[in-house]
Amino acid sequence: MIRSFSKNQLERYPVYLKKLKEMREQGVSNVTSQMVASQLGYSEEQVKKDFAAVSASSGTPGKGRDLENLIDSLEGFLGYRDSTTAVIIGVGRLGQAILDYPGFRDMGLDIIAAFDSDEEKIGTEISGREIFKEEDIARLMPRLNAHIAIIAVPSGFAQKVADEAIRGGAIGIWNFAPVRLSVPSNVIVEEVNLASSLAVLSHRIKNILKEE
Amino acid sequence: MIRSFSKNQLERYPVYLKKLKEMREQGVSNVTSQMVASQLGYSEEQVKKDFAAVSASSGTPGKGRDLENLIDSLEGFLGYRDSTTAVIIGVGRLGQAILDYPGFRDMGLDIIAAFDSDEEKIGTEISGREIFKEEDIARLMPRLNAHIAIIAVPSGFAQKVADEAIRGGAIGIWNFAPVRLSVPSNVIVEEVNLASSLAVLSHRIKNILKEE
Repeated sequence: MIRSFSKNQLERYPVYLKKLKEMREQGVSNVTSQMVASQLGYSEEQVKKDFAAVSASSGTPGKGRDLENLIDSLEGFLGYRDSTTAVIIGVGRLGQAILDYPGFRDMGLDIIAAFDSDEEKIGTEISGREIFKEEDIARLMPRLNAHIAIIAVPSGFAQKVADEAIRGGAIGIWNFAPVRLSVPSNVIVEEVNLASSLAVLSHRIKNILKEE
Repeated sequence: MIRSFSKNQLERYPVYLKKLKEMREQGVSNVTSQMVASQLGYSEEQVKKDFAAVSASSGTPGKGRDLENLIDSLEGFLGYRDSTTAVIIGVGRLGQAILDYPGFRDMGLDIIAAFDSDEEKIGTEISGREIFKEEDIARLMPRLNAHIAIIAVPSGFAQKVADEAIRGGAIGIWNFAPVRLSVPSNVIVEEVNLASSLAVLSHRIKNILKEE
Protein backbone atom coordinates (compact mmCIF):
# COMPACT_ATOMS: atom_id res chain seq x y z
CA MET A 1 0.00 0.00 0.00
CA ILE A 2 1.25 3.43 -0.85
CA ARG A 3 0.56 6.07 1.71
CA SER A 4 -0.31 9.41 0.23
CA PHE A 5 1.61 12.53 1.18
CA SER A 6 0.65 16.11 0.37
CA LYS A 7 3.10 18.33 -1.48
CA ASN A 8 3.42 20.57 1.58
CA GLN A 9 4.21 17.60 3.76
CA LEU A 10 6.80 16.22 1.32
CA GLU A 11 8.45 19.62 1.21
CA ARG A 12 8.89 19.61 4.98
CA TYR A 13 11.02 16.45 5.12
CA PRO A 14 14.22 17.92 3.65
CA VAL A 15 13.80 20.83 6.07
CA TYR A 16 13.60 18.38 9.00
CA LEU A 17 16.59 16.49 7.70
CA LYS A 18 18.74 19.61 7.47
CA LYS A 19 17.76 20.70 10.97
CA LEU A 20 18.38 17.23 12.45
CA LYS A 21 21.82 17.08 10.85
CA GLU A 22 22.62 20.49 12.33
CA MET A 23 21.55 19.16 15.73
CA ARG A 24 23.77 16.10 15.25
CA GLU A 25 26.74 18.37 14.57
CA GLN A 26 25.98 20.16 17.82
CA GLY A 27 26.26 16.83 19.66
CA VAL A 28 22.54 16.20 20.18
CA SER A 29 21.67 12.48 20.30
CA ASN A 30 17.95 12.47 21.17
CA VAL A 31 15.19 14.74 19.93
CA THR A 32 11.57 15.35 20.79
CA SER A 33 8.96 16.63 18.34
CA GLN A 34 8.65 19.65 20.55
CA MET A 35 12.37 20.53 20.16
CA VAL A 36 12.21 20.28 16.40
CA ALA A 37 8.90 22.15 16.22
CA SER A 38 10.16 25.08 18.24
CA GLN A 39 13.35 25.38 16.20
CA LEU A 40 11.48 25.38 12.90
CA GLY A 41 8.42 27.34 13.94
CA TYR A 42 6.11 24.40 13.15
CA SER A 43 3.40 23.09 15.45
CA GLU A 44 4.39 20.16 17.67
CA GLU A 45 1.35 18.25 16.44
CA GLN A 46 2.48 18.53 12.84
CA VAL A 47 6.05 17.44 13.53
CA LYS A 48 4.75 14.46 15.51
CA LYS A 49 2.50 13.38 12.63
CA ASP A 50 5.21 13.91 10.00
CA PHE A 51 7.73 11.82 11.94
CA ALA A 52 5.22 9.07 12.67
CA ALA A 53 4.39 8.80 8.96
CA VAL A 54 7.94 7.81 8.00
CA SER A 55 9.42 6.18 11.07
CA ALA A 56 8.43 2.85 12.58
CA SER A 57 9.87 3.47 16.05
CA SER A 58 8.18 6.16 18.08
CA GLY A 59 10.80 7.08 20.66
CA THR A 60 10.79 6.91 24.42
CA PRO A 61 8.30 9.13 26.26
CA GLY A 62 10.10 12.07 27.87
CA LYS A 63 13.36 11.22 26.12
CA GLY A 64 12.30 11.46 22.51
CA ARG A 65 13.64 9.73 19.45
CA ASP A 66 17.13 8.54 18.71
CA LEU A 67 18.50 11.21 16.38
CA GLU A 68 20.55 8.80 14.25
CA ASN A 69 17.56 6.50 13.68
CA LEU A 70 15.35 9.40 12.77
CA ILE A 71 17.88 10.75 10.24
CA ASP A 72 18.08 7.23 8.79
CA SER A 73 14.31 7.00 8.45
CA LEU A 74 14.04 10.37 6.76
CA GLU A 75 16.85 9.61 4.32
CA GLY A 76 15.31 6.27 3.52
CA PHE A 77 11.89 7.82 2.97
CA LEU A 78 13.29 10.57 0.75
CA GLY A 79 15.14 7.96 -1.26
CA TYR A 80 18.54 9.51 -0.63
CA ARG A 81 20.24 6.12 -0.59
CA ASP A 82 18.48 4.75 -3.59
CA SER A 83 19.32 7.01 -6.46
CA THR A 84 17.24 8.07 -9.41
CA THR A 85 18.96 8.61 -12.71
CA ALA A 86 18.43 11.88 -14.54
CA VAL A 87 19.60 13.72 -17.60
CA ILE A 88 19.74 17.47 -17.96
CA ILE A 89 18.58 19.23 -21.10
CA GLY A 90 20.22 22.59 -21.65
CA VAL A 91 23.71 23.37 -20.37
CA GLY A 92 23.72 27.13 -20.63
CA ARG A 93 24.43 29.08 -17.45
CA LEU A 94 21.39 27.71 -15.66
CA GLY A 95 22.10 24.12 -16.67
CA GLN A 96 25.73 24.41 -15.66
CA ALA A 97 24.73 25.93 -12.33
CA ILE A 98 22.47 22.92 -11.74
CA LEU A 99 25.26 20.50 -12.66
CA ASP A 100 27.51 22.27 -10.17
CA TYR A 101 24.91 22.55 -7.42
CA PRO A 102 26.28 20.66 -4.45
CA GLY A 103 24.35 17.92 -2.84
CA PHE A 104 22.01 16.55 -5.51
CA ARG A 105 23.90 13.27 -5.50
CA ASP A 106 23.54 13.05 -1.71
CA MET A 107 19.82 13.57 -2.27
CA GLY A 108 19.69 10.55 -4.55
CA LEU A 109 19.66 12.41 -7.85
CA ASP A 110 22.30 11.17 -10.24
CA ILE A 111 22.60 13.40 -13.32
CA ILE A 112 24.46 11.15 -15.73
CA ALA A 113 24.34 12.96 -19.06
CA ALA A 114 23.43 16.25 -20.69
CA PHE A 115 21.82 17.38 -23.93
CA ASP A 116 22.26 20.66 -25.75
CA SER A 117 21.70 22.15 -29.18
CA ASP A 118 24.97 24.08 -29.24
CA GLU A 119 27.35 22.41 -31.72
CA GLU A 120 30.33 23.72 -29.78
CA LYS A 121 29.24 21.90 -26.63
CA ILE A 122 28.14 18.61 -28.18
CA GLY A 123 30.74 15.90 -27.69
CA THR A 124 32.51 17.76 -24.89
CA GLU A 125 32.17 17.21 -21.15
CA ILE A 126 30.83 19.73 -18.65
CA SER A 127 31.29 19.03 -14.95
CA GLY A 128 32.09 15.43 -15.83
CA ARG A 129 28.99 14.79 -17.97
CA GLU A 130 29.10 14.10 -21.67
CA ILE A 131 27.01 16.48 -23.79
CA PHE A 132 24.81 14.83 -26.43
CA LYS A 133 22.81 16.33 -29.29
CA GLU A 134 19.33 17.52 -28.40
CA GLU A 135 17.89 15.53 -31.33
CA ASP A 136 19.07 12.33 -29.65
CA ILE A 137 17.08 12.75 -26.43
CA ALA A 138 14.31 10.27 -27.28
CA ARG A 139 16.77 7.77 -28.70
CA LEU A 140 19.35 7.89 -25.89
CA MET A 141 17.24 8.23 -22.75
CA PRO A 142 16.11 4.57 -22.74
CA ARG A 143 19.73 3.41 -23.13
CA LEU A 144 20.80 5.65 -20.28
CA ASN A 145 17.93 4.22 -18.22
CA ALA A 146 17.13 7.75 -17.05
CA HIS A 147 13.75 8.38 -15.44
CA ILE A 148 13.98 12.13 -14.87
CA ALA A 149 14.64 14.94 -17.33
CA ILE A 150 15.80 18.23 -15.84
CA ILE A 151 14.80 21.05 -18.17
CA ALA A 152 17.06 24.09 -18.25
CA VAL A 153 16.51 25.42 -21.75
CA PRO A 154 14.98 28.84 -22.57
CA SER A 155 11.18 28.94 -22.10
CA GLY A 156 10.43 28.82 -25.82
CA PHE A 157 12.09 25.42 -26.18
CA ALA A 158 10.95 23.78 -22.96
CA GLN A 159 7.79 22.12 -24.29
CA LYS A 160 9.61 20.68 -27.29
CA VAL A 161 12.41 19.08 -25.26
CA ALA A 162 9.92 17.87 -22.63
CA ASP A 163 7.99 16.07 -25.39
CA GLU A 164 11.23 14.44 -26.58
CA ALA A 165 12.15 13.36 -23.06
CA ILE A 166 8.72 11.81 -22.57
CA ARG A 167 9.08 9.98 -25.88
CA GLY A 168 12.38 8.74 -24.44
CA GLY A 169 10.62 7.34 -21.38
CA ALA A 170 10.93 10.16 -18.82
CA ILE A 171 8.34 9.75 -16.07
CA GLY A 172 9.41 12.85 -14.18
CA ILE A 173 10.25 16.34 -15.37
CA TRP A 174 12.02 18.83 -13.14
CA ASN A 175 11.30 22.08 -14.89
CA PHE A 176 13.52 25.12 -14.33
CA ALA A 177 12.16 27.00 -17.36
CA PRO A 178 9.60 29.62 -16.32
CA VAL A 179 6.78 28.13 -18.36
CA ARG A 180 4.00 25.66 -17.63
CA LEU A 181 4.43 22.39 -19.50
CA SER A 182 1.64 20.25 -20.77
CA VAL A 183 2.35 16.54 -20.30
CA PRO A 184 0.39 13.27 -20.29
CA SER A 185 -1.28 12.48 -16.97
CA ASN A 186 1.15 9.67 -16.15
CA VAL A 187 4.15 12.04 -16.19
CA ILE A 188 5.03 14.04 -13.10
CA VAL A 189 6.16 17.63 -13.44
CA GLU A 190 7.73 19.57 -10.60
CA GLU A 191 8.31 23.23 -11.37
CA VAL A 192 11.00 25.25 -9.68
CA ASN A 193 8.88 28.29 -9.25
CA LEU A 194 11.17 31.24 -8.64
CA ALA A 195 8.29 33.67 -9.21
CA SER A 196 6.46 32.26 -6.18
CA SER A 197 9.56 32.37 -4.03
CA LEU A 198 10.14 35.98 -5.06
CA ALA A 199 6.49 36.88 -4.41
CA VAL A 200 6.81 35.84 -0.77
CA LEU A 201 9.95 37.92 -0.32
CA SER A 202 8.75 41.04 -2.16
CA HIS A 203 5.42 41.14 -0.44
CA ARG A 204 7.00 40.99 3.00
CA ILE A 205 9.61 43.59 2.13
CA LYS A 206 7.04 45.98 0.76
CA ASN A 207 5.12 45.73 4.00
CA ILE A 208 8.25 46.62 5.95
CA LEU A 209 9.01 49.57 3.70
CA LYS A 210 5.40 50.80 4.08
CA GLU A 211 5.67 50.62 7.88
CA GLU A 212 8.77 52.76 7.99
CA MET B 1 -3.66 48.21 8.31
CA ILE B 2 -1.63 45.44 6.85
CA ARG B 3 -3.51 42.29 6.02
CA SER B 4 -1.59 39.15 6.74
CA PHE B 5 -1.06 36.52 4.07
CA SER B 6 0.27 33.03 4.57
CA LYS B 7 3.30 31.88 2.62
CA ASN B 8 1.20 29.32 0.76
CA GLN B 9 -1.30 31.98 -0.20
CA LEU B 10 1.40 34.39 -1.41
CA GLU B 11 2.89 31.61 -3.50
CA ARG B 12 -0.41 31.09 -5.29
CA TYR B 13 -0.66 34.63 -6.70
CA PRO B 14 2.08 34.32 -9.34
CA VAL B 15 0.47 31.03 -10.39
CA TYR B 16 -2.89 32.81 -10.85
CA LEU B 17 -1.23 35.62 -12.73
CA LYS B 18 0.47 33.26 -15.18
CA LYS B 19 -2.78 31.37 -15.80
CA LEU B 20 -4.80 34.59 -16.25
CA LYS B 21 -2.28 35.91 -18.76
CA GLU B 22 -2.52 32.62 -20.68
CA MET B 23 -6.30 33.03 -20.72
CA ARG B 24 -5.92 36.61 -21.98
CA GLU B 25 -3.78 35.35 -24.86
CA GLN B 26 -6.54 32.89 -25.71
CA GLY B 27 -8.97 35.82 -26.02
CA VAL B 28 -10.80 35.35 -22.70
CA SER B 29 -12.14 38.63 -21.26
CA ASN B 30 -14.12 37.51 -18.20
CA VAL B 31 -13.28 34.83 -15.65
CA THR B 32 -15.07 33.16 -12.78
CA SER B 33 -13.34 31.66 -9.74
CA GLN B 34 -14.72 28.33 -10.85
CA MET B 35 -12.94 28.55 -14.26
CA VAL B 36 -9.61 29.39 -12.67
CA ALA B 37 -10.04 26.77 -9.94
CA SER B 38 -10.74 23.97 -12.39
CA GLN B 39 -7.77 24.89 -14.59
CA LEU B 40 -5.36 24.95 -11.66
CA GLY B 41 -6.81 22.11 -9.63
CA TYR B 42 -7.55 24.40 -6.68
CA SER B 43 -10.86 24.54 -4.82
CA GLU B 44 -13.30 27.20 -5.99
CA GLU B 45 -13.64 28.43 -2.42
CA GLN B 46 -9.92 29.07 -2.17
CA VAL B 47 -9.69 30.94 -5.47
CA LYS B 48 -12.66 33.09 -4.46
CA LYS B 49 -11.02 33.99 -1.16
CA ASP B 50 -7.63 34.67 -2.74
CA PHE B 51 -9.10 36.99 -5.37
CA ALA B 52 -11.29 38.80 -2.84
CA ALA B 53 -8.23 39.48 -0.66
CA VAL B 54 -6.46 41.52 -3.34
CA SER B 55 -9.21 42.93 -5.52
CA ALA B 56 -11.76 45.58 -4.57
CA SER B 57 -14.32 44.79 -7.26
CA SER B 58 -16.02 41.45 -6.98
CA GLY B 59 -17.29 40.81 -10.50
CA THR B 60 -20.77 40.32 -11.84
CA PRO B 61 -22.71 37.24 -10.68
CA GLY B 62 -22.84 34.69 -13.47
CA LYS B 63 -20.42 36.63 -15.64
CA GLY B 64 -17.41 36.74 -13.37
CA ARG B 65 -14.63 39.25 -13.13
CA ASP B 66 -13.14 41.44 -15.81
CA LEU B 67 -9.88 39.66 -16.69
CA GLU B 68 -7.90 42.84 -17.32
CA ASN B 69 -8.93 44.35 -13.96
CA LEU B 70 -8.05 41.16 -12.16
CA ILE B 71 -4.59 40.98 -13.76
CA ASP B 72 -4.09 44.62 -12.76
CA SER B 73 -5.06 43.90 -9.15
CA LEU B 74 -2.74 40.92 -8.92
CA GLU B 75 0.20 42.80 -10.44
CA GLY B 76 -0.42 45.69 -8.11
CA PHE B 77 -0.61 43.41 -5.09
CA LEU B 78 2.56 41.55 -6.06
CA GLY B 79 4.32 44.88 -6.52
CA TYR B 80 5.25 44.15 -10.13
CA ARG B 81 4.91 47.81 -11.09
CA ASP B 82 6.73 49.18 -8.12
CA SER B 83 10.17 47.76 -8.25
CA THR B 84 12.48 46.72 -5.44
CA THR B 85 16.18 47.22 -5.89
CA ALA B 86 18.51 44.30 -5.32
CA VAL B 87 22.14 43.37 -5.59
CA ILE B 88 23.46 39.92 -6.27
CA ILE B 89 26.40 38.49 -4.36
CA GLY B 90 28.31 35.83 -6.27
CA VAL B 91 28.42 35.76 -10.05
CA GLY B 92 29.63 32.23 -10.65
CA ARG B 93 27.45 30.02 -12.82
CA LEU B 94 24.49 30.21 -10.46
CA GLY B 95 24.73 33.99 -10.10
CA GLN B 96 25.04 34.47 -13.83
CA ALA B 97 22.07 32.18 -14.42
CA ILE B 98 20.05 34.36 -12.03
CA LEU B 99 21.17 37.54 -13.81
CA ASP B 100 20.05 35.99 -17.10
CA TYR B 101 16.79 34.58 -15.79
CA PRO B 102 14.03 36.21 -17.80
CA GLY B 103 11.24 38.06 -16.14
CA PHE B 104 12.59 39.21 -12.77
CA ARG B 105 12.35 42.83 -13.91
CA ASP B 106 8.72 42.29 -14.94
CA MET B 107 8.18 40.92 -11.45
CA GLY B 108 9.46 44.16 -9.93
CA LEU B 109 12.92 42.95 -9.03
CA ASP B 110 15.64 45.21 -10.32
CA ILE B 111 19.11 43.72 -9.84
CA ILE B 112 21.33 46.75 -10.25
CA ALA B 113 24.79 45.57 -9.25
CA ALA B 114 26.82 42.50 -8.41
CA PHE B 115 29.55 41.58 -5.96
CA ASP B 116 32.19 38.90 -6.27
CA SER B 117 35.52 37.95 -4.77
CA ASP B 118 37.13 36.97 -8.07
CA GLU B 119 39.72 39.61 -9.04
CA GLU B 120 39.22 38.78 -12.71
CA LYS B 121 35.53 39.69 -12.56
CA ILE B 122 35.75 42.80 -10.37
CA GLY B 123 35.46 45.97 -12.43
CA THR B 124 33.94 44.16 -15.41
CA GLU B 125 30.28 43.94 -16.38
CA ILE B 126 28.20 40.75 -16.53
CA SER B 127 24.79 40.90 -18.21
CA GLY B 128 24.96 44.67 -17.95
CA ARG B 129 25.73 44.85 -14.23
CA GLU B 130 28.99 46.19 -12.84
CA ILE B 131 30.85 43.76 -10.57
CA PHE B 132 32.14 45.22 -7.31
CA LYS B 133 34.48 43.78 -4.69
CA GLU B 134 32.88 41.58 -2.05
CA GLU B 135 34.58 43.63 0.69
CA ASP B 136 32.60 46.67 -0.42
CA ILE B 137 29.13 45.18 0.13
CA ALA B 138 28.40 46.97 3.42
CA ARG B 139 29.83 50.25 2.15
CA LEU B 140 28.13 50.32 -1.26
CA MET B 141 24.67 48.88 -0.56
CA PRO B 142 23.38 52.07 1.12
CA ARG B 143 24.59 54.17 -1.81
CA LEU B 144 22.91 51.82 -4.26
CA ASN B 145 19.75 52.10 -2.14
CA ALA B 146 19.32 48.32 -2.47
CA HIS B 147 16.94 46.55 -0.09
CA ILE B 148 17.45 42.97 -1.19
CA ALA B 149 20.62 40.88 -1.40
CA ILE B 150 20.47 37.80 -3.59
CA ILE B 151 22.99 35.28 -2.34
CA ALA B 152 24.56 32.99 -4.92
CA VAL B 153 27.92 32.19 -3.35
CA PRO B 154 29.05 28.69 -2.29
CA SER B 155 27.45 27.53 0.99
CA GLY B 156 30.56 28.10 3.06
CA PHE B 157 30.56 31.83 2.29
CA ALA B 158 26.83 32.51 2.44
CA GLN B 159 26.62 33.52 6.10
CA LYS B 160 29.56 35.89 5.82
CA VAL B 161 28.20 37.77 2.80
CA ALA B 162 24.70 37.82 4.32
CA ASP B 163 26.14 39.50 7.42
CA GLU B 164 27.83 42.09 5.22
CA ALA B 165 24.64 42.75 3.26
CA ILE B 166 22.71 43.24 6.49
CA ARG B 167 25.38 45.66 7.71
CA GLY B 168 24.79 47.45 4.41
CA GLY B 169 21.08 47.78 5.13
CA ALA B 170 19.56 44.73 3.40
CA ILE B 171 16.13 43.97 4.82
CA GLY B 172 15.55 40.97 2.58
CA ILE B 173 17.79 38.07 1.61
CA TRP B 174 16.95 35.77 -1.27
CA ASN B 175 19.15 32.81 -0.55
CA PHE B 176 20.12 30.40 -3.32
CA ALA B 177 22.93 28.80 -1.30
CA PRO B 178 21.84 25.46 0.17
CA VAL B 179 22.43 26.50 3.78
CA ARG B 180 20.23 28.00 6.48
CA LEU B 181 21.25 31.55 7.36
CA SER B 182 20.96 33.07 10.77
CA VAL B 183 19.82 36.70 10.61
CA PRO B 184 18.35 39.30 12.98
CA SER B 185 14.57 39.03 13.42
CA ASN B 186 13.89 42.18 11.40
CA VAL B 187 15.49 40.74 8.27
CA ILE B 188 13.46 38.51 5.96
CA VAL B 189 15.04 35.45 4.41
CA GLU B 190 13.45 33.53 1.57
CA GLU B 191 15.26 30.34 0.67
CA VAL B 192 15.09 28.82 -2.77
CA ASN B 193 14.78 25.32 -1.52
CA LEU B 194 15.72 22.99 -4.35
CA ALA B 195 15.93 20.06 -1.92
CA SER B 196 12.22 20.39 -1.14
CA SER B 197 11.28 20.68 -4.78
CA LEU B 198 13.34 17.59 -5.55
CA ALA B 199 11.82 15.69 -2.63
CA VAL B 200 8.34 16.09 -4.09
CA LEU B 201 9.48 14.85 -7.49
CA SER B 202 11.59 11.91 -6.26
CA HIS B 203 8.99 10.65 -3.88
CA ARG B 204 6.31 10.57 -6.58
CA ILE B 205 8.61 8.93 -9.08
CA LYS B 206 9.67 6.25 -6.64
CA ASN B 207 6.02 5.41 -6.06
CA ILE B 208 5.48 5.02 -9.79
CA LEU B 209 8.55 2.81 -10.15
CA LYS B 210 7.35 0.66 -7.25
CA GLU B 211 3.95 0.20 -8.86
CA GLU B 212 5.41 -1.04 -12.12
